[in-house]
Amino acid sequence: MGSSKAGERPSGKAAKKSRKESAKKSGRKSAKKDSAKKDSANKAVAVAPPFPATGPGRLPAPKPAPGHLQERRTGAGPSSATEAFRVPRLVPPFSSWSTVGADIGPESEKQAEKAMEDISERLAQLQERLYAQGQAGDRRRVLVILQGMDTSGKDGVTRHVLDAVNPLGLHLASFKKPTAEELAHDFLWRIEKQVPEPGVIGVFNRSQYEDVLVVRVHELVPPAVWGKRFAQINAFERRLYRQGVTVLKCFLHISPETQKERLLARLDDPEKYWKYNPGDVDERAYWDAYQAAYADVLRRCNTLVAPWHVIPSDEKWYRNWAVAQLLVETLERIDPQFPPADFDVEAERARLEQL
Amino acid sequence: MGSSKAGERPSGKAAKKSRKESAKKSGRKSAKKDSAKKDSANKAVAVAPPFPATGPGRLPAPKPAPGHLQERRTGAGPSSATEAFRVPRLVPPFSSWSTVGADIGPESEKQAEKAMEDISERLAQLQERLYAQGQAGDRRRVLVILQGMDTSGKDGVTRHVLDAVNPLGLHLASFKKPTAEELAHDFLWRIEKQVPEPGVIGVFNRSQYEDVLVVRVHELVPPAVWGKRFAQINAFERRLYRQGVTVLKCFLHISPETQKERLLARLDDPEKYWKYNPGDVDERAYWDAYQAAYADVLRRCNTLVAPWHVIPSDEKWYRNWAVAQLLVETLERIDPQFPPADFDVEAERARLEQL
Repeated sequence: MGSSKAGERPSGKAAKKSRKESAKKSGRKSAKKDSAKKDSANKAVAVAPPFPATGPGRLPAPKPAPGHLQERRTGAGPSSATEAFRVPRLVPPFSSWSTVGADIGPESEKQAEKAMEDISERLAQLQERLYAQGQAGDRRRVLVILQGMDTSGKDGVTRHVLDAVNPLGLHLASFKKPTAEELAHDFLWRIEKQVPEPGVIGVFNRSQYEDVLVVRVHELVPPAVWGKRFAQINAFERRLYRQGVTVLKCFLHISPETQKERLLARLDDPEKYWKYNPGDVDERAYWDAYQAAYADVLRRCNTLVAPWHVIPSDEKWYRNWAVAQLLVETLERIDPQFPPADFDVEAERARLEQL
Repeated sequence: MGSSKAGERPSGKAAKKSRKESAKKSGRKSAKKDSAKKDSANKAVAVAPPFPATGPGRLPAPKPAPGHLQERRTGAGPSSATEAFRVPRLVPPFSSWSTVGADIGPESEKQAEKAMEDISERLAQLQERLYAQGQAGDRRRVLVILQGMDTSGKDGVTRHVLDAVNPLGLHLASFKKPTAEELAHDFLWRIEKQVPEPGVIGVFNRSQYEDVLVVRVHELVPPAVWGKRFAQINAFERRLYRQGVTVLKCFLHISPETQKERLLARLDDPEKYWKYNPGDVDERAYWDAYQAAYADVLRRCNTLVAPWHVIPSDEKWYRNWAVAQLLVETLERIDPQFPPADFDVEAERARLEQL
């Protein structure tokens, strides 16, 4: 079984390589143009009142990312992944988002691998601290929301970015086609149950946004119903924010050509047949409708407490680096600390020595 | 905060090293004697009718481990981790179990690191296949149950052994002090909810066994109640087996000296204060009662469909290797396969090329 299609694989890889090269030639340049646009739009955010006022029952405003909105590079490029990928307050037209890497981060797979080693280590350290302070009563936590077309890499990000993280401090939830029980409840019912506990990094593979994406595209409920959900989602995410949940929303943005290539790759390799679902091809026919629905999501749910990030995802290594770097920057803003002892260290030592 | 105790750390490490050396001198030899005992007892298992007959609604008997019960080594040592650590049908006295490495596997931390690289890779491959066939309707899955005294390394095993595994195919559950709602239900109610889905590797950090361990030691329910639970657990695990769940029960066995050392290490390092719980020291006073309770668990719940394994856990690297190797052998017996296409590959390719 394993070898019948093996002869076809090299040509698939060659095609991929040439695509990558052409993407670099054409895409990188347009990405640079976009990033200049984004940059000026991002500055508008800094002027707007950025977070709810601190006060009883409210969290202090998160610290800005190191170098956030500062010009650390000599050029006009972004100084952090947060700045590079965050959708600015004045949302640019959907067509302006690039599916290949922006003017930040690694420029090759090799550079990305190197960068990921450092990021993984940093991620593991930060996560241990987050978990530790969570055990001591700190309510802060992170929820990564991954959305994107089929094959955009939601599973791949989960695997490659979170490998470094202690599985004990991780909570994953995949939202597939709702069950009869889930459908009988409000669309946020199944979501609420999967919100991570304090100290934990949660990852949603698809999310509440499916209820304004697939549901809208296939008209599973009337527009009057899904139309209200943008505001309901914003209210829900604001409530999460007040609970100490930093929501990191990532749209893994791919081109239709990349999707086609990845679906074909699954047909080329018998070890990937299980990932192939003929229904995914049916969905491709709705590509434009999905893109329009995503455009509305980015426009209507890009809030100050839970902004969207658009991740150029045609290159897997760039996508993984981008999400990992975003997560590190998010955790650095939280700046978790090992909690102090809530017991008498010397007394405990004496007690232990006697047992 | 971070440096006040730093001066004490080196001596703690030195103490650890000398303990390791003495453990090797004394413990390894006794482990060898034990393993000879275990070996002959294990042979008795092979004669007994090993699994329920295959038939409608039943699973085929698992394949034996590669080399299982065969003398691959020239000596009398075990030929697989399964053989080395599985509690034999004629359960030896609890005192005969060693807390340091048996006559199999790596003999140093360095050797263990090397071995773990290969095991991790193998584990990742096997798990992907298990997950793939689960997606295609195969109901088989694995449930690793980790039990052991405080500091025995339940968290450490989860972290180090399962790092290699795709988090999407992993389901972790930690059973802490039950909530009021959980207490209002049967003791297996909260357990049942966490049984992994087909294709998934589940890990229980503590488990149903707490209800015949801590509950017994602290007399939280009358003996007439916990006394019936051994049979109830056996019936539950038999039901899991019929559902396709391979239960891998691991008792992480440490000496009281190792526990003391690990608790002291947490007091020596301010970054570990959060792991220290004064209640753990209170529990140490019940050491013998716990060991007696564990002895009963090993004796009364060591079934053919869900046998216990005793993991020498005084050395963290040996413990991690042992559980990882056991898990690999368990998966190899399941021998998961990538499922064939349930669609027409050429027709799908043609359809895709047009979109």
